[in-house]
Amino acid sequence: MSLKSFFEPSSVAVIGASREPGKLGHEIFKNIIDAGYKGNIYPVNPKAPDVLGVRCYPSIKQVPGEVELAVVIVPARFVPSVISDCGEKGVKAAVVISGGFGETGPSGAELERQLVEAARKTGIRIVGPNCQGVNSTSAGLCASWPLVRTKGPISVISQSGTVLAAIACWAEEEKVGVDKIVALGNKCDVDETELLDYFSNESTTRVIALYIEGVRDGRKFFRVARAAAEKKPIVVLKSGRTAKGAQAVASHTRSLAGKDAIFDSVFKQAGVQRVSSVEELYDVCKAFASLPLPTGKDVAIITSSGGSGILALDTCVELGMNAPDLPPETREKLKEKLPPECILRNPLDLTGSATSQMYDEAIAALSDSGAVDALVVIVGDPMPGISDVIIKHVSQGKTIVPVMLGGGKAEVEERTKLVDSRIPVYSDPVRAVRALATCVRRAQWLGSLK
Amino acid sequence: MSLKSFFEPSSVAVIGASREPGKLGHEIFKNIIDAGYKGNIYPVNPKAPDVLGVRCYPSIKQVPGEVELAVVIVPARFVPSVISDCGEKGVKAAVVISGGFGETGPSGAELERQLVEAARKTGIRIVGPNCQGVNSTSAGLCASWPLVRTKGPISVISQSGTVLAAIACWAEEEKVGVDKIVALGNKCDVDETELLDYFSNESTTRVIALYIEGVRDGRKFFRVARAAAEKKPIVVLKSGRTAKGAQAVASHTRSLAGKDAIFDSVFKQAGVQRVSSVEELYDVCKAFASLPLPTGKDVAIITSSGGSGILALDTCVELGMNAPDLPPETREKLKEKLPPECILRNPLDLTGSATSQMYDEAIAALSDSGAVDALVVIVGDPMPGISDVIIKHVSQGKTIVPVMLGGGKAEVEERTKLVDSRIPVYSDPVRAVRALATCVRRAQWLGSLK
Repeated sequence: MSLKSFFEPSSVAVIGASREPGKLGHEIFKNIIDAGYKGNIYPVNPKAPDVLGVRCYPSIKQVPGEVELAVVIVPARFVPSVISDCGEKGVKAAVVISGGFGETGPSGAELERQLVEAARKTGIRIVGPNCQGVNSTSAGLCASWPLVRTKGPISVISQSGTVLAAIACWAEEEKVGVDKIVALGNKCDVDETELLDYFSNESTTRVIALYIEGVRDGRKFFRVARAAAEKKPIVVLKSGRTAKGAQAVASHTRSLAGKDAIFDSVFKQAGVQRVSSVEELYDVCKAFASLPLPTGKDVAIITSSGGSGILALDTCVELGMNAPDLPPETREKLKEKLPPECILRNPLDLTGSATSQMYDEAIAALSDSGAVDALVVIVGDPMPGISDVIIKHVSQGKTIVPVMLGGGKAEVEERTKLVDSRIPVYSDPVRAVRALATCVRRAQWLGSLK
Repeated sequence: MSLKSFFEPSSVAVIGASREPGKLGHEIFKNIIDAGYKGNIYPVNPKAPDVLGVRCYPSIKQVPGEVELAVVIVPARFVPSVISDCGEKGVKAAVVISGGFGETGPSGAELERQLVEAARKTGIRIVGPNCQGVNSTSAGLCASWPLVRTKGPISVISQSGTVLAAIACWAEEEKVGVDKIVALGNKCDVDETELLDYFSNESTTRVIALYIEGVRDGRKFFRVARAAAEKKPIVVLKSGRTAKGAQAVASHTRSLAGKDAIFDSVFKQAGVQRVSSVEELYDVCKAFASLPLPTGKDVAIITSSGGSGILALDTCVELGMNAPDLPPETREKLKEKLPPECILRNPLDLTGSATSQMYDEAIAALSDSGAVDALVVIVGDPMPGISDVIIKHVSQGKTIVPVMLGGGKAEVEERTKLVDSRIPVYSDPVRAVRALATCVRRAQWLGSLK
């Protein structure tokens, strides 16, 4: 069965919806309503007449209409029978938030076995148990926490609810937004591989972020990931790199972390981009979400900060990109347009006396030169008007990675304007270049570099 | 002559103060006033009767009172004679913001030679030229931009004005604050080495951040840095690591970037902690500024997010720290106090059902155990009340590195409370552990690990 019922259900029941703020059964129900879900929504709780003013039903079987998706937040021991009831009701899919299953030991594992059995009998697909839920922004379905509503191109599959939430929160803050995000939990049924395949075919997803601690079937993962990577950028954060980490993985999600070197080579061959921290996972997704894929490795750096330019340059070179010299005719053109203190090299240093107009000239001249495939534009001073300049050039299809730091209040204002135009900004030149380098690495893997 | 006149002058003249907003001569004059400088301040500008309501003088020589520090923002060609005038006036020190000297070519270099000559004749010490100025928060003297006022323990010496400003802005945002910050510019007189020595003896400075592209006298730098590192943590970001980067360094500040491997080994021997990005420079300074120096390498991780805990653990192990198992008696104690779903290992996983009370119990039990030297406390969910718990334990002298991510609005609130109590927070477990590991490395160099 397709996974569509998890992300575009016509109706949702929240089994274990609660009237008590602070309880998950309350927060999740509230988040679904606050996220603007448009389908029918049914709280299920035998002890409450209504939740947040919505009429409540004592059991899923007594809900009057059809229910496509169930979100389950009841104690573990009740979950297998709840799933059976869902089956009788004709529910297609269930997100089981509740913990207390395989992750807690043998008796929990037995409950999980019963849950799987109940699901198999009735054909219900399960996300979880022991997970932070699902959020499908296009459906306004935040069956997770915290509340995140901003639609965007990043889909996330995560064995950690926190990694999932962190990416979603940062993407909301910078108005990049997320498409569909799924916390895998114990992945008793739906797993990373199936979701990867599904998301790779979703037109609203432009980049897929993965946090995993292990995979169930390595060969299948490799096959699916490779096919998915042909369609979309896939960025992975894999923990359990060390022996100690691998032991902790076994306690956390009962996954086999496996030999890290093997994962590393699988990722490389499959064209999956590996990162090493949660922020880098976000940085790289943001780059894939907002930049056209580079068609070459040649980068120009434009900066008002000589030092930041050199830090960016070092990183470019170390990560296999080129920072070619400016073509003589571009140098000549810039010599006419820019004041004499500017250093007409790559990095093109507009110096502390830079203005937005100078950035405009510099971006135009370097784009026109055809000598580079991407521009890293570092704004290291208060620079009123710079956002308009960047917005203009980005809207003309130029590949610009904007970096802003050290600009105080003026920076906050310009950054906000860029973010409002869905142009995310980096605050560290090294982080920005690392993200760009990952895009170049993907282009290389695709064979699409000129 | 001591460098004190740059940081605690009894009076300041701003030569080239301007009435025109947006001009550096205006912004700097305004920042000195807005930062609350208490000494006498004299704008100097032959064309203006007053600047921002303060009476203006046509030349430094016509200023009525004594002037200890001059901030110079006039075109380069006037600077040597301005410095001579300052000499006649009895000015002790000058910060030359103006560019157009050695960095622009031979005629600029000649001007710089004249500037140095004028300074030598009269004994005036010079910071700059071609620099972003000086900010001494304890004196309320922001002779730089943007305006930064928050006092704190970090002093910064930087060949990049932007790196300087970025550290100061981030430190202000998180209420960590800075003590004295200096942009070196062309360092025609005062250089990184002299400042390092000076700051290492300043009681208000607890950690020194350096961004450098090269040093003038390697042996002297090594000697001074080593002696300074005995007194205070020194964190360095050095660019020009690659051949291309070294070329760019020569254009930017005429420094010799030198062989990177040599710098690397000098830093190691001198006990200077090297970092590789502007954010990491800040992260590490923040750790030194806010944490007691660890007395051992044993770390416990407490988390509501299993995944984040494992990412932190991997990083601990990779960076040479230990994450010992919980002592049996601590496990027993925790078993009584915590719900059964908690995973009583290291990382101690309180799971998604964690509460602030559970963190309280966990932090107390692990501190009491005496088994670890630092606690990485990761809050991966909305966790009302967690700031009070952390504030309590930090005020009892415990070494806690707080990390918050994925907590939405509740996180913002708790983070603000911590920051208001001068407890800075990290937003990525890997970044936090990297910063802690640098503190441990320093303790190791000092021989102060138990």
